[in-house]
Amino acid sequence: MIKGIVGVDIGGTNTVIGLFNQDLTLLEKKSLPTLKPNFPAKTNKPVEFLDELAEEINALIVKNDYQNKVECVGIGVPGIVNPESGIVINAVNLGYQDVPFAEEMKSRLALPTFIDNDVRTYTRGEVAVGAGAGLENVICLTLGTGMAAGIMIDGKMIPGANYFAGEIGHDPVPGNDTVCNCGNIGCLETIASASGIARLAKQAIQLGKPTILNGLAGEINAKEVYEASVKGDQVAIEVFKEVATTLGFKLLSATYLVNPEVIIIGGGVAAAGHFITDPIKEIFEKYYINEKKPLIVTGELGDSAGLIGAASLARAKHF
Amino acid sequence: MIKGIVGVDIGGTNTVIGLFNQDLTLLEKKSLPTLKPNFPAKTNKPVEFLDELAEEINALIVKNDYQNKVECVGIGVPGIVNPESGIVINAVNLGYQDVPFAEEMKSRLALPTFIDNDVRTYTRGEVAVGAGAGLENVICLTLGTGMAAGIMIDGKMIPGANYFAGEIGHDPVPGNDTVCNCGNIGCLETIASASGIARLAKQAIQLGKPTILNGLAGEINAKEVYEASVKGDQVAIEVFKEVATTLGFKLLSATYLVNPEVIIIGGGVAAAGHFITDPIKEIFEKYYINEKKPLIVTGELGDSAGLIGAASLARAKHF
Repeated sequence: MIKGIVGVDIGGTNTVIGLFNQDLTLLEKKSLPTLKPNFPAKTNKPVEFLDELAEEINALIVKNDYQNKVECVGIGVPGIVNPESGIVINAVNLGYQDVPFAEEMKSRLALPTFIDNDVRTYTRGEVAVGAGAGLENVICLTLGTGMAAGIMIDGKMIPGANYFAGEIGHDPVPGNDTVCNCGNIGCLETIASASGIARLAKQAIQLGKPTILNGLAGEINAKEVYEASVKGDQVAIEVFKEVATTLGFKLLSATYLVNPEVIIIGGGVAAAGHFITDPIKEIFEKYYINEKKPLIVTGELGDSAGLIGAASLARAKHF
Repeated sequence: MIKGIVGVDIGGTNTVIGLFNQDLTLLEKKSLPTLKPNFPAKTNKPVEFLDELAEEINALIVKNDYQNKVECVGIGVPGIVNPESGIVINAVNLGYQDVPFAEEMKSRLALPTFIDNDVRTYTRGEVAVGAGAGLENVICLTLGTGMAAGIMIDGKMIPGANYFAGEIGHDPVPGNDTVCNCGNIGCLETIASASGIARLAKQAIQLGKPTILNGLAGEINAKEVYEASVKGDQVAIEVFKEVATTLGFKLLSATYLVNPEVIIIGGGVAAAGHFITDPIKEIFEKYYINEKKPLIVTGELGDSAGLIGAASLARAKHF
């Protein structure tokens, strides 16, 4: 009998639900707004959203005639998550504190439900059918508005002793005095993120450097910096080089520590391709004394990585 | 029946053999010179040393009347080791290349024999009965002539995809232009090691800074710098502060990545105690945004960590 798996990727703005076959083939997906009824106050019982999410999952199952075929549900949540207890310890952007998310969903759906941090589900997606397929020692970054990493060692995702592994976005960069959203100074994600790219480009414009970015209306974003790089704009190319070099030295430290087979650059910034990966590769050629260098690649699944990874989490835990 | 375990800690100069009970109580230990017959040429069959080591192990067993009681043997080897196959891939200071060490010893001793890299056995020792007892997520450093780290995650030692995990001694430090033994420039171990401490102290003396180290005859060593620190010598204290700060930022990066419960500073330099740990703790207080900070402690077993850890390795793999 064909078995189904539901994957859910909860984002700060939208939540995507996917119905998959056991081989992770997507049958149908749908999107709904992520409800944050009490935000910014903290809640341990976001009942409205839990109810709506369960309703939408059931509707998707019925629509595809998968009643009694779905075996399990996997959910990626942006925050500090304990994947063993299924509790969301803290999700700043959702207003969650100590939410027993897996249990609440399990009781609503009458299906085994597994949750993890969204960067770790993203990593699982790339490992299941993307850039890390077949590999067991993986560092996968999500470079978007912020940044974080998923770490897989010998085929196991690493949550860390306090579920704080991979939070490298707040690792300080020597000489960087930019204030981070977290309140600290110099965090990696003030440089290595879409926001960091936009900030550095604006800085270069303000310094009067000659660049086609100058002609753009309104706020510069990372995509525009990438497009300028493709057109050969030296200022834009230099921005990516600074970002990639800063990131590259942190990835070098990470590699000296855990010796992965592959480093996957994911998230929106991955679209910059070789403008990001080339400077990182140069650093590894020069400074990583191990003959076997890790592969340095961009993610292959884009936005879908999180959704596929959530289904992959459920498959790994349930079957 | 009482069961015995043999632990062996192979060093560049001396090799120590210990006979243990199953609860890791040491019954007797002995030391022999580490034979390197073909050194510096590389060999895959160091027969003389293998024979002598087996003979000494058997003699120790007989002397303690433990014939037919010893269940297994664990050996720590300084080099790149594959703990699954039992092969020493490369041990620069011993002249070994692709030595099937575990198999050769097993056939000589007729006992199950397990090997691993010496920093990982050292870490196992501290986790078994030392500063990491009862903990499962551990980073343990050995700061001696060089430096490296052992990483335990969820109770498992991490060898890395190519058995190169923990080689953080060669991670470059921004702004450091010292040439390392490996040929690269700026490696962490040119600062965070006994050699680094001695070098920085000599530099301070050459700059004419007022210090009691000035009056010492011959080459300054790390121990003398420590002793001067205890006497309140500001130059010596500053050397430790520079070393600990450089190390501290690398440990911060490592902690952001894998979120350990404890960081153990081991090796000879651990004797410097709070002169090393205090500046590291300050960095974590200031820059680690996770409320739960890792414990930052010095090792408790000194030289014995490697020997106990080798026995612990055998116990973990065999029983």
